[in-house]
Amino acid sequence: MIAIHGMTMSGNCWKASQILRLTGHAFDWVETDPNRGDTRTEAFLALNPQGEVPVVVLDDATVLTQSNAILAHFAEGTPWLPPPGLARTRVLQWLFWEQYSHEPYIAVARNLITYRGRPADQAARLAQCTVRGEAALGVMERRLTGHDWLTDSGPTIADLALFAYTHVADEGGFELAAVPGVQAWVARVAALPGIVTLPRG
Amino acid sequence: MIAIHGMTMSGNCWKASQILRLTGHAFDWVETDPNRGDTRTEAFLALNPQGEVPVVVLDDATVLTQSNAILAHFAEGTPWLPPPGLARTRVLQWLFWEQYSHEPYIAVARNLITYRGRPADQAARLAQCTVRGEAALGVMERRLTGHDWLTDSGPTIADLALFAYTHVADEGGFELAAVPGVQAWVARVAALPGIVTLPRG
Repeated sequence: MIAIHGMTMSGNCWKASQILRLTGHAFDWVETDPNRGDTRTEAFLALNPQGEVPVVVLDDATVLTQSNAILAHFAEGTPWLPPPGLARTRVLQWLFWEQYSHEPYIAVARNLITYRGRPADQAARLAQCTVRGEAALGVMERRLTGHDWLTDSGPTIADLALFAYTHVADEGGFELAAVPGVQAWVARVAALPGIVTLPRG
Repeated sequence: MIAIHGMTMSGNCWKASQILRLTGHAFDWVETDPNRGDTRTEAFLALNPQGEVPVVVLDDATVLTQSNAILAHFAEGTPWLPPPGLARTRVLQWLFWEQYSHEPYIAVARNLITYRGRPADQAARLAQCTVRGEAALGVMERRLTGHDWLTDSGPTIADLALFAYTHVADEGGFELAAVPGVQAWVARVAALPGIVTLPRG
């Protein structure tokens, strides 16, 4: 059986379980919380020396890391990832953008506010996350005003990758009502068959 | 003719010109320097509303963004990107890791030291970039001690993506002599036919 080592509240780990569900793969979930040191044990570091979740372990013990690479791996050959060519490149653009310009701000703001109680010594960092996170939501809003999905290929792993932290962005202090195109898209993704949203913190 | 809008000294922009050279595409280079406001003009924002380089414009006016998506786009169907399956996933893992855990520290340290003269008000940021950049080089060293390339598929766009800022990491204050596996790999990539290294700052 495929195993996912991940933290339930993590959007990046959610991507792994979500794409496995959508592509019909059963899996065991091994709760692995970096906040309590689970990613620093000898056993975990043997799986992933970088000490990061999610980690997917296949039946033959092959180890996969990097949430967006995991999305692409299991989406290959399904409608969640268009065939090679411009349509696929559009999906990849969003995946790289998510990890560079969205997750580092929206996921971090959520962690600081909802999971770490707004630590005073992180106020400057949180302020920066707020500014850049709002800019990221603005980029999504430009696309999603007048379009149902992030690319012209219908729902793809680009939508899953961005849904991960956007649908809980309010836990990072972001108001989705300010970006109605994004808000409508969040509802659209959540309504797709088989989508399981993150628990609230 | 394909056009690349980019800044000559940028490793991310280098990726675009390098993969076009390696895959036999002629291109025009349009020097576009964010430091002098070139990415904030109306004309540039019409191409890429996010105001980032590199931007590749194809003959039919299609616009491509995100350096690692550009690498994958032109590498498709060549030995620089293995076919779908585990080998490709390994390449994608490095591409996502590069944008999340390597570029934000090594490229930023290089910019602060070599292009901005070590601004005093950025000392804390530079210190963080140094620590995390060294950690990133350590991750590469683990792989490149005993392996010629980042994946088992020979030289791929994973090597190109990481070479971009690693071969000029000394300009960010990093000592490649401390990571001899990385240092040997830099020489190995540089010696591949058709590789053009970045000018020194």
